[in-house]
Amino acid sequence: MTERIDHTLRGRWTPSTGTLPPHALRWLRQRTGLAEVRTPARAPVVPASALSDAARTALDSVVGPGFVRVDRDSRLGRAGGLSYVDILEQRGEGALAVPDAVVLPASPDQVVDVLRACVEHDVAVVPFGGGTSVVGGVAALRGDKAAVIALDLARLDALVSVDPVSRVAVLQAGVTAPEADRLLAPHGFTLGHVPQSYERATVGGFAATRSAGQASAGYGRFEDLVEGVRLAAPVGEWRLGVAPASAAGPDLKQLVIGSEGAFGVITEVALRVRPRPVVERYEGFVVDGWARGADVVRSLAQRRVLADVTRLSDVDETEVSLALAGGWQTAALRAYLRARRVARPCLLVLGWHGASPAEVRRRRREALRGLDLLPLGRPLGEAWRHGRFAGPRRRDALVEVGVCVETLETATHWSRVHELRGTVRAALRDALGECLVMCHISHAYETGASLYFTVLAPRSVADPIGQWQVAKAAAGEAVAGLGTISHHHAVGRDHAPYLEAEIGGLGLDVLASVKRALDPTGVLNPGKLLPSGLTSPS
Amino acid sequence: MTERIDHTLRGRWTPSTGTLPPHALRWLRQRTGLAEVRTPARAPVVPASALSDAARTALDSVVGPGFVRVDRDSRLGRAGGLSYVDILEQRGEGALAVPDAVVLPASPDQVVDVLRACVEHDVAVVPFGGGTSVVGGVAALRGDKAAVIALDLARLDALVSVDPVSRVAVLQAGVTAPEADRLLAPHGFTLGHVPQSYERATVGGFAATRSAGQASAGYGRFEDLVEGVRLAAPVGEWRLGVAPASAAGPDLKQLVIGSEGAFGVITEVALRVRPRPVVERYEGFVVDGWARGADVVRSLAQRRVLADVTRLSDVDETEVSLALAGGWQTAALRAYLRARRVARPCLLVLGWHGASPAEVRRRRREALRGLDLLPLGRPLGEAWRHGRFAGPRRRDALVEVGVCVETLETATHWSRVHELRGTVRAALRDALGECLVMCHISHAYETGASLYFTVLAPRSVADPIGQWQVAKAAAGEAVAGLGTISHHHAVGRDHAPYLEAEIGGLGLDVLASVKRALDPTGVLNPGKLLPSGLTSPS
Repeated sequence: MTERIDHTLRGRWTPSTGTLPPHALRWLRQRTGLAEVRTPARAPVVPASALSDAARTALDSVVGPGFVRVDRDSRLGRAGGLSYVDILEQRGEGALAVPDAVVLPASPDQVVDVLRACVEHDVAVVPFGGGTSVVGGVAALRGDKAAVIALDLARLDALVSVDPVSRVAVLQAGVTAPEADRLLAPHGFTLGHVPQSYERATVGGFAATRSAGQASAGYGRFEDLVEGVRLAAPVGEWRLGVAPASAAGPDLKQLVIGSEGAFGVITEVALRVRPRPVVERYEGFVVDGWARGADVVRSLAQRRVLADVTRLSDVDETEVSLALAGGWQTAALRAYLRARRVARPCLLVLGWHGASPAEVRRRRREALRGLDLLPLGRPLGEAWRHGRFAGPRRRDALVEVGVCVETLETATHWSRVHELRGTVRAALRDALGECLVMCHISHAYETGASLYFTVLAPRSVADPIGQWQVAKAAAGEAVAGLGTISHHHAVGRDHAPYLEAEIGGLGLDVLASVKRALDPTGVLNPGKLLPSGLTSPS
Repeated sequence: MTERIDHTLRGRWTPSTGTLPPHALRWLRQRTGLAEVRTPARAPVVPASALSDAARTALDSVVGPGFVRVDRDSRLGRAGGLSYVDILEQRGEGALAVPDAVVLPASPDQVVDVLRACVEHDVAVVPFGGGTSVVGGVAALRGDKAAVIALDLARLDALVSVDPVSRVAVLQAGVTAPEADRLLAPHGFTLGHVPQSYERATVGGFAATRSAGQASAGYGRFEDLVEGVRLAAPVGEWRLGVAPASAAGPDLKQLVIGSEGAFGVITEVALRVRPRPVVERYEGFVVDGWARGADVVRSLAQRRVLADVTRLSDVDETEVSLALAGGWQTAALRAYLRARRVARPCLLVLGWHGASPAEVRRRRREALRGLDLLPLGRPLGEAWRHGRFAGPRRRDALVEVGVCVETLETATHWSRVHELRGTVRAALRDALGECLVMCHISHAYETGASLYFTVLAPRSVADPIGQWQVAKAAAGEAVAGLGTISHHHAVGRDHAPYLEAEIGGLGLDVLASVKRALDPTGVLNPGKLLPSGLTSPS
């Protein structure tokens, strides 16, 4: 079972301008004044591996020959994730942190042994699942260690058990989301966890980063799915989770979830599963104005009748969506909205999953009761569904043609949603000058919602990475005190400087104390989650 | 606002045999062979206060004169909680741990200053809310400290703020559950948190112990309500919670929730609130046989149509409920069940809260669809509702007449519910000999359920505390590996020996490391949550 996946295929998505039609690019240029600046990609510099022979021999003896890889392609394929800066670095426009080796353990026990070998040989460990981090979570930083490996969990790809009565499945950490659903299908179950990174991301990564998933309103955030975890730490193995709920002290599972490989390597997760839906119905609607749209989503959340997928785009994002549709569709939709005097159209996509058409009809009826929505029908909902994973590829295509394009996200309580959106937009505009900032709500709760921003700006030729870092810092400062630094992208390297503003100095002290208990020499994921000064050994 | 409550009234409930009618007692004697052994209560021994003059002066200067109390009644009123052993000790049948003083701070800042004074003067601190712990959570243990105070939070009784848009209310920790609902009512909101301890327990205590509440299926467990916390620790103040959900690392709120006063003193909680229900409908049903009853509850949970209150009694508990009803009601119900050939009746109480009768009707219809239930009508549901807080008083009445009576609870996944129930019943019977063990499910989840046991046995005259400790240990051993040591009673002193079996040695190490970060000298609640050896200073 462990060798089904061709590991060499698990590199990054090939950027393809094919995913950004010419009309869309034309429209974007008109709208934003973007000039096409094709900067040729250069091959990134890959330094010689710093892994000592002794370390390599020790790792070889744990995982077996062939599963400690030092070739250029293996190392480059695990050098960073999928952020805009990662892509620039992969294009040779910045210093890329490349792991000294890629290690592929075959079992949870081997992961424990790999960690012990790394402690002994002073090697930093970056756990690597799908490599989809957009916050520098898998950057191959070595901290104060002699070398750094990417610990690729691809061979931990088994469905360990299914308890159909309790609806709990145990999966190894390296199982990707589509593979999880494929393994669960014969048992009649699905995870229901569908983030934009679905195609590549792993269940271990979801747990390590508190993933949300586009259907969080229906299936819950990933932390709501986790019934148990198995963690390999330098000090040994830790298993948690014997009941669906407990008052046996603090919920320590919640310390492992979101620990981003800094406390240990998640090797197995026990997950709540749901019956595969028989019916899925996606529909598009339009609300006139962002504030009214947010009120609609708040009403759905507070009446507890959210659709499983609920997302509201602001006027700018709606305009881009219409433009991307292209041709007669764009024209027809614009005419339809004009005829109905919708001045500031905001697209609302609702998606319901159910065991029967009747169930979906009933839930839809309850949700829509009393709401003033202009229905656009199912094709628009289906269009969103079919394009739901295309965002990163579109982003890559824009990077190709010289655009600075990135996403960032936060969440806050309903009473601060508009202030937070306004503050972040203003900060990005101040930092980037001429730019397009789009926003949507994709995760709603009774007490608040997420805000997800997509930014497009003409790319600086002289210092594209510096350009974005200034904008990212401005956004980070804007968020502090008003919302969380991340609703579902996690902390990684990029948000670590802002964590103290959210959890306080005591919060950092507590995280550092937990890290010292589990990873006393600090080999695990240096410079992620905690600012690096706090992760050094006690 | 701080002096509304008469603190001297916040002692224990007066035991009242009036809550146990004579026919019920007769029936219990017949059923269980219990003999009446009236053991006269003796006044418990209260040693002289060990609080030094210097400590008292320091505390006086923080909270003001009159709010450091060393009189016998104040100290006795905070000596332990409401467990069977607590009651025996209060009756003079065991050594009662009495705090050396009761300290009543008036604000979160004063709590921080009290903790600093206690660190300086080597005084242990037991946070005290409603005093309703049944696991020794408020026992006045001093550990290795010179003295111990009960830190009574009664004066932290304010509603700090209400955000009606986000539906978030900030309450000070000492606000009791009824007071919270009273304070929220003018804003149209309720907490919806109704545990059996509702009449006295506080919101700080709910958070500190991961309370569940009888309506957990509808309103969520208390941890689901907590949007933010303010914690006073010996090293300073810690505030958490800026968004409804976050991926900014591990959810540190979950370290505070369930920390049982061992990491700090919760002084404020930001809580999700709901509109006050317009309609409440409670109904009784009967299912024939425990296994079928559990399947019904599982179906409700997995179809996600649980009533807000959902509780299933086993055959023995149902029989006792019928007997307690008494007179013509018992006879009529028995005849009704006989006529319908229900051999092993299990009572199922379902309670719905809603904004309208139509909403409740709709939810009721969806819940009952396809289920084979014998309806008993609303009077039986209402009878449960009216008696929902009577359990502890009934228990006290039984203690008065010489009965060994206590409750314990656990939770597990559905596939292990029957094994766990059988194992715990067998362990209790082995330990106690002739006894009556009743069980119910009161909290159901998609993946599992809680099991709540009530035990009645003839009380040992020679060593009643030892008798129960043997039974409790047997139950604790029976639970280990099959379920959690507590679903909603918490760890306290009584479950601390079993925590390692649930969270592992690494789990204890992690908790101890967090405690050292927040409470380096170990003044906070010694001997609770963590086995005492682990809570000593580093």
